[in-house]
Amino acid sequence: MPTLAYAAQSATSPLAPLAINRRDPLPTDVAMDILYCGVCHSDLHQARNEWQGTTFPCVPGHEIVGRVTKVGSKVRKFKEGDLAAVGCMVDSCRSCENCKRGLEQYCLNGCTFTYNSPDKISGGMTFGGYSTGVVVDEAFTLKVPTSLNLAATAPLLCAGITTYSPMRHWKVSKGQKVGVVGLGGLGHMGVKFARAFGARTVLFTTSPGKADDAKRLGADEVVVSKNAGEMAKHTGSFDFILDCVSAQHDINAYLNLLKLDGTLCLVGAPEHPLPVSAFSLLLPRKQFAGSGIGGVAETQEMLDFCADHGIVSDIEMIKMQDINTAYDRLLKGDVKYRFVIDMASLKA
Amino acid sequence: MPTLAYAAQSATSPLAPLAINRRDPLPTDVAMDILYCGVCHSDLHQARNEWQGTTFPCVPGHEIVGRVTKVGSKVRKFKEGDLAAVGCMVDSCRSCENCKRGLEQYCLNGCTFTYNSPDKISGGMTFGGYSTGVVVDEAFTLKVPTSLNLAATAPLLCAGITTYSPMRHWKVSKGQKVGVVGLGGLGHMGVKFARAFGARTVLFTTSPGKADDAKRLGADEVVVSKNAGEMAKHTGSFDFILDCVSAQHDINAYLNLLKLDGTLCLVGAPEHPLPVSAFSLLLPRKQFAGSGIGGVAETQEMLDFCADHGIVSDIEMIKMQDINTAYDRLLKGDVKYRFVIDMASLKA
Repeated sequence: MPTLAYAAQSATSPLAPLAINRRDPLPTDVAMDILYCGVCHSDLHQARNEWQGTTFPCVPGHEIVGRVTKVGSKVRKFKEGDLAAVGCMVDSCRSCENCKRGLEQYCLNGCTFTYNSPDKISGGMTFGGYSTGVVVDEAFTLKVPTSLNLAATAPLLCAGITTYSPMRHWKVSKGQKVGVVGLGGLGHMGVKFARAFGARTVLFTTSPGKADDAKRLGADEVVVSKNAGEMAKHTGSFDFILDCVSAQHDINAYLNLLKLDGTLCLVGAPEHPLPVSAFSLLLPRKQFAGSGIGGVAETQEMLDFCADHGIVSDIEMIKMQDINTAYDRLLKGDVKYRFVIDMASLKA
Repeated sequence: MPTLAYAAQSATSPLAPLAINRRDPLPTDVAMDILYCGVCHSDLHQARNEWQGTTFPCVPGHEIVGRVTKVGSKVRKFKEGDLAAVGCMVDSCRSCENCKRGLEQYCLNGCTFTYNSPDKISGGMTFGGYSTGVVVDEAFTLKVPTSLNLAATAPLLCAGITTYSPMRHWKVSKGQKVGVVGLGGLGHMGVKFARAFGARTVLFTTSPGKADDAKRLGADEVVVSKNAGEMAKHTGSFDFILDCVSAQHDINAYLNLLKLDGTLCLVGAPEHPLPVSAFSLLLPRKQFAGSGIGGVAETQEMLDFCADHGIVSDIEMIKMQDINTAYDRLLKGDVKYRFVIDMASLKA
């Protein structure tokens, strides 16, 4: 099926229109019109080949919300006209130890990411959500709650699950004190989830100007991380800290804020290694961890949780044609807190 | 009670005889003749003020096995003539959250270490086990199984519990694959415990010459960590790795060997921060942790476990007078695997 998309043709060229082909739905496939697609910082990294390994042309986008237009003969969960969503993955081996545990994102044979992954079904590379439509196996297609704002739901598919999953894994709950480092696309979702899970939520930021917004989003307290005195007051007091910062920063300063058996979990991916002092982990016993997105079942659980708690992303809607300007603004941190592409702009 | 000891009078002076005073037993105290005291690398660090903060004179030693000579009126667990042991701590606040959980080593008010800690009962600083006798509250005194070699039991009080505790905390068990990095005082105990817990045990060393000894101690397999090809074969396969190395080394090389939700636990304390790459923790989800000794109850549990499984340290016995030579050899790694002082040498 010929489909209109926006693609980078090289690491240095701006994104521009490109006609791509989507396969006709196989028996287990769901075809959908894309309504909205969130803009993740990974999109920019891949489009500009900053992680090396990008195959061009590259069509980014893995925060996809759409409406089903056609289903394969064996599809049971969806029918034409249903809302549907796709996150960071469209396939995995489904048979390894991790897939069987519902952790397809850690597939031992390598999951198929929504874009820039070898497409085991159609051949070539996968193309993402910066396009008018997509065809995905129903096993990797999510149900979208009808009660939420659809555009603001799109970022839940990456920024949402990336922050939800570690908080669930390390059992963030009422009575705990939880920190979120950085108030961006990930961090603002982290604050919303920590609050929804009932934890006392502290937002760490280098920008004092973000304090009011953090409190509006649900933070009980805001700590300016450059202020050593403010940081020291929280020594040894956190059960869990979600670190959403992709820039270099002092990890030991946050490890020191954990209490016995506390965990600092990294979901941002700083380019260079972060120096960790042994005594930051030994006295008392603590953990420095990392986590990547979430499995299909947990992503569905997260969407349902968001419906129950009225949680969506804070977004700024853009047209597909504005993507290059949006990337420039993203690099400056000039977005509250996620750009979402209104895909109607590409169909007009 | 006047007591003979060996002490460092400054960071640069060799250890030499010193008469110290031990308090007369209070109602809950146990007084003991010290039979054996293990030599821990911490002793050397403190005697030479390498961690700053040493108060001189300093009497090191926190791997103490002795025989009870006198008990206070309220002592219930011990009587004159019993064997007894003392590890790294002699007191704690006993009322904080961590003490109440039996994790006195992480006492929020600061536990009293066996040496070089302010002594809240007697005043001054605590003096350790390089001496003919010691007086300790029975709450911090351990029962010694009678079935074990007493000299070889002494190192269990620090090297033993330091390796036993994290393996218990992270639930090392049969069916798991467990790594131990470094074959020294800590590492050789790590190998013995991993094997006793039923795990497939892999010893990592930079010295190919240690392979036979590692297997004798219980390792199923030995990997020379300098050999990238050998390391690569184990990528993503470990449930747990205990890192016993105090020198600088590449942590990412070991994090990459962990499987999903695996933990690398540091019990050595390298002087400089260890650079950790974000992707070493994110893909898949993993943990880099640290752990310090163990609580009183767990130390007793460990001693009883050792009695049940016939586990002691591999030791080389020395006289008190040989301690300075022993320190020199310790720095060269020339000991298999723990020096233990025969305290009879100081009483002669």
